[in-house]
Amino acid sequence: MRTYKLTIAYDGTRYQGWQRQTNTDNTIQHVLELSIGQLMGYPVKIDGAGRTDAGVHARGQVASVELSRMIPEKELCESINRYLPDDIRIAKVEMVPNGFHARKDAKGKKYEYYVDCREKPDVFSRRFCYHFPERLDLERMREATEYFVGTKNFTSFTDADISTAEKSVFREVFKIGIVRTGEKFRFTFYGSGFLYHSVRIIMGTLLEIGMGKRESVLLPVVFAAEDRKSAGFLAPARGLFLRKVYYQEDVI
Amino acid sequence: MRTYKLTIAYDGTRYQGWQRQTNTDNTIQHVLELSIGQLMGYPVKIDGAGRTDAGVHARGQVASVELSRMIPEKELCESINRYLPDDIRIAKVEMVPNGFHARKDAKGKKYEYYVDCREKPDVFSRRFCYHFPERLDLERMREATEYFVGTKNFTSFTDADISTAEKSVFREVFKIGIVRTGEKFRFTFYGSGFLYHSVRIIMGTLLEIGMGKRESVLLPVVFAAEDRKSAGFLAPARGLFLRKVYYQEDVI
Repeated sequence: MRTYKLTIAYDGTRYQGWQRQTNTDNTIQHVLELSIGQLMGYPVKIDGAGRTDAGVHARGQVASVELSRMIPEKELCESINRYLPDDIRIAKVEMVPNGFHARKDAKGKKYEYYVDCREKPDVFSRRFCYHFPERLDLERMREATEYFVGTKNFTSFTDADISTAEKSVFREVFKIGIVRTGEKFRFTFYGSGFLYHSVRIIMGTLLEIGMGKRESVLLPVVFAAEDRKSAGFLAPARGLFLRKVYYQEDVI
Repeated sequence: MRTYKLTIAYDGTRYQGWQRQTNTDNTIQHVLELSIGQLMGYPVKIDGAGRTDAGVHARGQVASVELSRMIPEKELCESINRYLPDDIRIAKVEMVPNGFHARKDAKGKKYEYYVDCREKPDVFSRRFCYHFPERLDLERMREATEYFVGTKNFTSFTDADISTAEKSVFREVFKIGIVRTGEKFRFTFYGSGFLYHSVRIIMGTLLEIGMGKRESVLLPVVFAAEDRKSAGFLAPARGLFLRKVYYQEDVI
């Protein structure tokens, strides 16, 4: 038995998210498991680092898989790609020590969110950014990002059903960066991990602040409320990319 | 009666090309005519400057349309866009003197072709460039572009049925430019107009020269043959964009 770490890019537009589901085969995990299974000749299970929602993209999703034998990394990468549809690509395959688990061993994640504020939506980037034709104040949003940094209770910023959740609602955000290019914005989120919908709800909240509809000094009140309704809107999936997953050896 | 000039962008991926056809409604011209007709309340006909093939994109297609009344340009633009699917957008509407005809009055056209030579296809740009993982010699291709400049018989570089064609097989190419960024190439074609498939066949020929499979000094022989089989392969539609149409008042 050998364990492999797969780095994966996908255009999430036509999928029901990463995670295998009982009611649909249209998930990225399922398509990957099917493809690797066809290649190997027996059913396989893979573990993904991030459970991206329906419509969310990835440039650096990571998954781990155990296979029965040693296969050269480059060969395995090319072979799997031959079985995949053209909106999912394995970018890299690395053989890793047995026991490696893409989700459990992850130390942090980087997400990117793209916003296009131009008046008209662009027909070529529309699948990969949120068209939001509003005036955004970059400095207001930058100030607001500071309120998210640190280890906090993100209950107000998730749609997860936390009443039944066994897991912690605390997460650490390391940094949120914003780069403006003309009327386009790229938001970068670095953190230990994010709760369900959390990046998209933080995004909606930052956009409301950027439009002047909300004040960043009130963000501590939003955190303290521990109530989803006190935070901003859910920004759409199409603008979101899982950019990178960090492990022990990576510098964040 | 008022005449309007429409500048149009579209992602051609899911369409059977620009031109209205009797056997399918899935053309860009048809969708535009339907949308404008719904807006106006009566059937309309539009004339496009370039008949882009199935799968070809446009950032600056131009069409002319006659409507029964004066409508402010910005209002007309926004109204039509409300009826259009999100892969077709009107970028600009201008009222022009009656008699203006987008195709007949065009003085020249600019096309762009995108090639990605990286080893792996990119899941995010795959709809808008040709993934061609080969080593290309930029200087060889630049030298070759010179052989296309001027007024020439492009019979070898078209798939049009010229035996029955009433129109001239002569076209003038003003310039072909090539820009390299890392392993990506952008080819720009400026000309009076291009025959059916001509840009894509010139592209295929340039790529063969870039790979060293063909010599540019032999291009005059290819022109002289007046035979499609003597030219290179037909590069796929997905990399091609109609970028701009030039009229009397424009500087090419």
